[in-house]
Amino acid sequence: MRSSQLGVGVVGYGYWGPNLVRNFAASAAARVVAVCDRDPLRLAALSRHHPDVSATSRFEDLLEDSSVEAIAVATPAHTHYELALAALKAGKHVLVEKPLAPTADLVRRLIDEAERRRLTLMVDHTFLYTPSVRKISELVRRGEIGDVYYYDSTRVSLGLFQSDVSVIWDLAVHDLSIIDHIIDERPVAVSATGSRHVDGSPENMAHLTLFFDSSCVAHVNVNWLSPVKVRKTLIGGSKKMIVYDDMEPTEKIKVYDKGVTVDGSPEKAHQLRIGYRAGDMWAPHVPAKEALASEVEHFVDCVRNGAAPLCDAASGLRVVEILEAATRSIAGQGQPVRLGSFPAAHRPRRATA
Amino acid sequence: MRSSQLGVGVVGYGYWGPNLVRNFAASAAARVVAVCDRDPLRLAALSRHHPDVSATSRFEDLLEDSSVEAIAVATPAHTHYELALAALKAGKHVLVEKPLAPTADLVRRLIDEAERRRLTLMVDHTFLYTPSVRKISELVRRGEIGDVYYYDSTRVSLGLFQSDVSVIWDLAVHDLSIIDHIIDERPVAVSATGSRHVDGSPENMAHLTLFFDSSCVAHVNVNWLSPVKVRKTLIGGSKKMIVYDDMEPTEKIKVYDKGVTVDGSPEKAHQLRIGYRAGDMWAPHVPAKEALASEVEHFVDCVRNGAAPLCDAASGLRVVEILEAATRSIAGQGQPVRLGSFPAAHRPRRATA
Amino acid sequence: MRSSQLGVGVVGYGYWGPNLVRNFAASAAARVVAVCDRDPLRLAALSRHHPDVSATSRFEDLLEDSSVEAIAVATPAHTHYELALAALKAGKHVLVEKPLAPTADLVRRLIDEAERRRLTLMVDHTFLYTPSVRKISELVRRGEIGDVYYYDSTRVSLGLFQSDVSVIWDLAVHDLSIIDHIIDERPVAVSATGSRHVDGSPENMAHLTLFFDSSCVAHVNVNWLSPVKVRKTLIGGSKKMIVYDDMEPTEKIKVYDKGVTVDGSPEKAHQLRIGYRAGDMWAPHVPAKEALASEVEHFVDCVRNGAAPLCDAASGLRVVEILEAATRSIAGQGQPVRLGSFPAAHRPRRATA
Amino acid sequence: MRSSQLGVGVVGYGYWGPNLVRNFAASAAARVVAVCDRDPLRLAALSRHHPDVSATSRFEDLLEDSSVEAIAVATPAHTHYELALAALKAGKHVLVEKPLAPTADLVRRLIDEAERRRLTLMVDHTFLYTPSVRKISELVRRGEIGDVYYYDSTRVSLGLFQSDVSVIWDLAVHDLSIIDHIIDERPVAVSATGSRHVDGSPENMAHLTLFFDSSCVAHVNVNWLSPVKVRKTLIGGSKKMIVYDDMEPTEKIKVYDKGVTVDGSPEKAHQLRIGYRAGDMWAPHVPAKEALASEVEHFVDCVRNGAAPLCDAASGLRVVEILEAATRSIAGQGQPVRLGSFPAAHRPRRATA
Repeated sequence: MRSSQLGVGVVGYGYWGPNLVRNFAASAAARVVAVCDRDPLRLAALSRHHPDVSATSRFEDLLEDSSVEAIAVATPAHTHYELALAALKAGKHVLVEKPLAPTADLVRRLIDEAERRRLTLMVDHTFLYTPSVRKISELVRRGEIGDVYYYDSTRVSLGLFQSDVSVIWDLAVHDLSIIDHIIDERPVAVSATGSRHVDGSPENMAHLTLFFDSSCVAHVNVNWLSPVKVRKTLIGGSKKMIVYDDMEPTEKIKVYDKGVTVDGSPEKAHQLRIGYRAGDMWAPHVPAKEALASEVEHFVDCVRNGAAPLCDAASGLRVVEILEAATRSIAGQGQPVRLGSFPAAHRPRRATA
Repeated sequence: MRSSQLGVGVVGYGYWGPNLVRNFAASAAARVVAVCDRDPLRLAALSRHHPDVSATSRFEDLLEDSSVEAIAVATPAHTHYELALAALKAGKHVLVEKPLAPTADLVRRLIDEAERRRLTLMVDHTFLYTPSVRKISELVRRGEIGDVYYYDSTRVSLGLFQSDVSVIWDLAVHDLSIIDHIIDERPVAVSATGSRHVDGSPENMAHLTLFFDSSCVAHVNVNWLSPVKVRKTLIGGSKKMIVYDDMEPTEKIKVYDKGVTVDGSPEKAHQLRIGYRAGDMWAPHVPAKEALASEVEHFVDCVRNGAAPLCDAASGLRVVEILEAATRSIAGQGQPVRLGSFPAAHRPRRATA
Repeated sequence: MRSSQLGVGVVGYGYWGPNLVRNFAASAAARVVAVCDRDPLRLAALSRHHPDVSATSRFEDLLEDSSVEAIAVATPAHTHYELALAALKAGKHVLVEKPLAPTADLVRRLIDEAERRRLTLMVDHTFLYTPSVRKISELVRRGEIGDVYYYDSTRVSLGLFQSDVSVIWDLAVHDLSIIDHIIDERPVAVSATGSRHVDGSPENMAHLTLFFDSSCVAHVNVNWLSPVKVRKTLIGGSKKMIVYDDMEPTEKIKVYDKGVTVDGSPEKAHQLRIGYRAGDMWAPHVPAKEALASEVEHFVDCVRNGAAPLCDAASGLRVVEILEAATRSIAGQGQPVRLGSFPAAHRPRRATA
Repeated sequence: MRSSQLGVGVVGYGYWGPNLVRNFAASAAARVVAVCDRDPLRLAALSRHHPDVSATSRFEDLLEDSSVEAIAVATPAHTHYELALAALKAGKHVLVEKPLAPTADLVRRLIDEAERRRLTLMVDHTFLYTPSVRKISELVRRGEIGDVYYYDSTRVSLGLFQSDVSVIWDLAVHDLSIIDHIIDERPVAVSATGSRHVDGSPENMAHLTLFFDSSCVAHVNVNWLSPVKVRKTLIGGSKKMIVYDDMEPTEKIKVYDKGVTVDGSPEKAHQLRIGYRAGDMWAPHVPAKEALASEVEHFVDCVRNGAAPLCDAASGLRVVEILEAATRSIAGQGQPVRLGSFPAAHRPRRATA
């Protein structure tokens, strides 16, 4: 029954677009109707791999095609806002590559447009659909590691320099979405530093610190100019600590029963006796599943049910607000920038769970 | 000929003191005359291992003993200044654990005292004597990696919380001394963030960014509350890049012939074409030698020759100035703090080498 | 010009067949005409991914189709001989999965058939086409490591148990083909041990030692029942030593300038003084390229030019002779089995190179 | 109360002797009375570190000294038998470096001598006292991994070539003692291969397979001529599998909940359906303690209580029988050699535990 499948159009068939097409095509709940790209070579590649999908260089073809119910935007970052807005105005549900838009204000306009038209607007924060991040989220939510003390991520490699966005919009965005997802508290300020080593290019290296009202802190180290690829996150908790190493072929997540114990009263700091606890390490089995496969299924579900996606536009907005603030902080050499009050998240908080 | 050996006294026989005693004792050019500690158990341990060394609980005994020509200070950080000053006033050459003093002003007073009395004052920046850092320094100085783009270090573990200093005075100090040594340019500002997860304790986790007038940048990530021990530094250069992993049993230094090439003019940023270069990796053989053995030999040489040590007090001053500024920046949540004009370094600069 | 492309048929579309089809399809010099498999689900999968390729459950369709000039056999091991022979008799060039046949005698019959009909018969020893093995081969041939002292490989994982062949026919065969390729000397005997831990299954774990007339020795450790995946080979030489770790994402090959030096005459063994040499380590850059892509190109070239393939049937024969002998040795709990005189290899020997 | 301490003499102060002296000296239950070595430089080193211990070049001095109740033998392998026998004849308890003697017959003579005189005779199989092996033993004995399918060890490095024994007597002996300890079944045959790459030296590289009456198998890979140091053992079981990597600074033992499940009857092998199980990995915390410290305490206890040591001479005999048989097998290029009936072990078997 083809008619029950969600008709999807994809704009942009460069690096990420082929993955979207492949996963929508493999999903029983969707079918790819048409793909738009300006590059004829890419369209030719599409036709070789997906002969049954319409190939077009005109975005309007997607907008005008009534069998296209949803559009996935996988073009360069600076075009996301305009294309997503046009798609919404044409009545299409939208899945947008991160970031949703270059400023929080523009993200809010997209949200308004989607809400007014009761359309699903989802941002492609793929990492939230990886089995690893889902497992970490589960561990944190069920209290396995206690209070989260810190999230400290290193995401560096000899990466693809982008011309329109700095490394924080390309790489740190992944960590910001994970932090937004697993830490049950909103950051209140950001301090960031960055540097550029190629004249005329945006920052290729940056470090961000996010402050929370609690003693929780998050730090993200991103770099397009590293000789080795590192994807390693330490998550410290009052009970246990997690090391998430995405470069490991298996056992990506290790949970350490390690920490400190404090004996004595904080008033008499010089008399504090700190003990060290070293227990077992445990690597929960995490089944292999392609994140994007889970994500496209979730998107189709949300379109069908009208439910708010895990990566709804509100979470996309929170991430863009931090990126904007971090960009200002980088310009001020680490000058801290306060973050505004965020819209309430749709997902249930731990306190009420 | 005992008389030709430098008579050394050591104050503090806790964590580091035994290493100093062992290395001075093993050196043909020195002999350990006396050791001072307040703890009788530690003095008993000393006598077991070094029955020929005087054990005393009175620091004055060291000052008054004319056969003690030099004093090594290995006590808690907040006592360094006072003990070093007293030693200098008693006419002793001094080797002090890092940091020299809690403020740059106090370091300057120590320097004045040492210069007036023509005594050697050296700070124990042990890492500069490791075969690894010596090899990195050699590679950088001979231009092997080109212009230094960045130094990015992660130095985390489940570490010994200290009650009198924060983690930056305990761990970041190592990186600051290495940066001071290998980068031929002085930092002009620092932005730092830190957090504490044990009430009543100083910051146990911090991130520092050092800015330079050039595009060079340095970042240091230190943490006493990590489940795993990481000692990893990436050094990016215009020609090559270095990964220095001190946890590796061998091949601690790897040199990667990797980087980017730029085609196009910086004025037309959007037309920049960036190429990626991936060549061989090379791990130079680094002979194993205990850093402290080299360091005590160097200290004795400097005392004998009146030469300025590699880790002279001026370098100790530069490091303390950064630590002081970083402490202020941490209080301001990353607020950048300018660094003053530093005294000229004694070591020859690359330009004149 | 379609007519200039080699028409290829593939029999077997299970684990490896899809890779063959994909690579032949991607090659400009070939086109996949038809694929045969008994399983309708697999044929359906073929049609989804390659709608332009004929799908059939009858092998005869491939034999009878004159546009099929060559047949690739990717079925279970015990069917290779029969299918390959039928293909040769039908006048097709043949590429066969390893092993060519279950006994050396049957391999010789295939060789005879191919020679009589002047057809190309090649065995799919894929590892010889990996950039890593090509680089190792280059290093060995140009004398970089000196005389080869040993080849010692560990190839273990939680692997797919096969019902018709033991682990040596499945995994050790890779090492035997590499040894045949890089060591310029033929083994003279084999001793092997093996064990089975699943009743009714063939050996799932085995260790082989190959003896050479020189002091060179090769050892292969294979196991389908290991909790971790290891693909690590040490190659010791008189000048240098290689570690080839196929699980590393990059720097798979490391060359160590390490070894021993001998001082004294062998007659006075107890007076030998052995010195140890530890120099640099070097990881040559190896460009990423899929082995099978190179292999299918090479196969097409050989068919076109009539040249003997790198993995010609003679090399396949040598490997099967060792596997047969090793199987006998396993039955005798390590009892050594002499290897017969091998047919001369087609490739030039180092001595004459 | 010095008199209650066991008086110990040590013969041999080369590589291992200093460790024995240090650990006996640090034990409250023992004191080192005298040390014997032929090399005056070594005796001088002893006197520097242990001024209160008698230094002598005459072994007879130890034998004749009535305050020496026990003698530890740490000389080259070919002298162990003679020195141990003389010590027993002089009425001393004896701790001998592995191996006890060059042949099983000579080991039996030592055992006879010790039994007749009711003296403790213990062999220094240090690995049995490491926290890691103790933990593995505990896991195996309590049935955590189920039936032991295999023990497969790689113990290679650029090691110290020995002139009087081959690599199996130097390195494989460690694994043989561990196997003897953790596997509750005696091997019935051994097949081994070895090769020598330095003229006039014994085998520097060897591979051993031990056969058991059950389907259990053990394999040991030892090599003095490896560019990298590997100390890795896989232990496969019917329920779980262990990886023991002694090169890891922490988490040396990892327990994998992985394996195969079999569906179908063994009679119909071709219909066997094998399933794969992949569960969590778990690294039990193993406290750091120097093995030799535990071992000397155990030795003193056994002397005092007359209890059979964990590494009694019977276990030393079993190990030497295997080494002798393996040496014969190496001469026969893997020819299997049956192992005789072993004396009953003193330790309780699992069946009765």
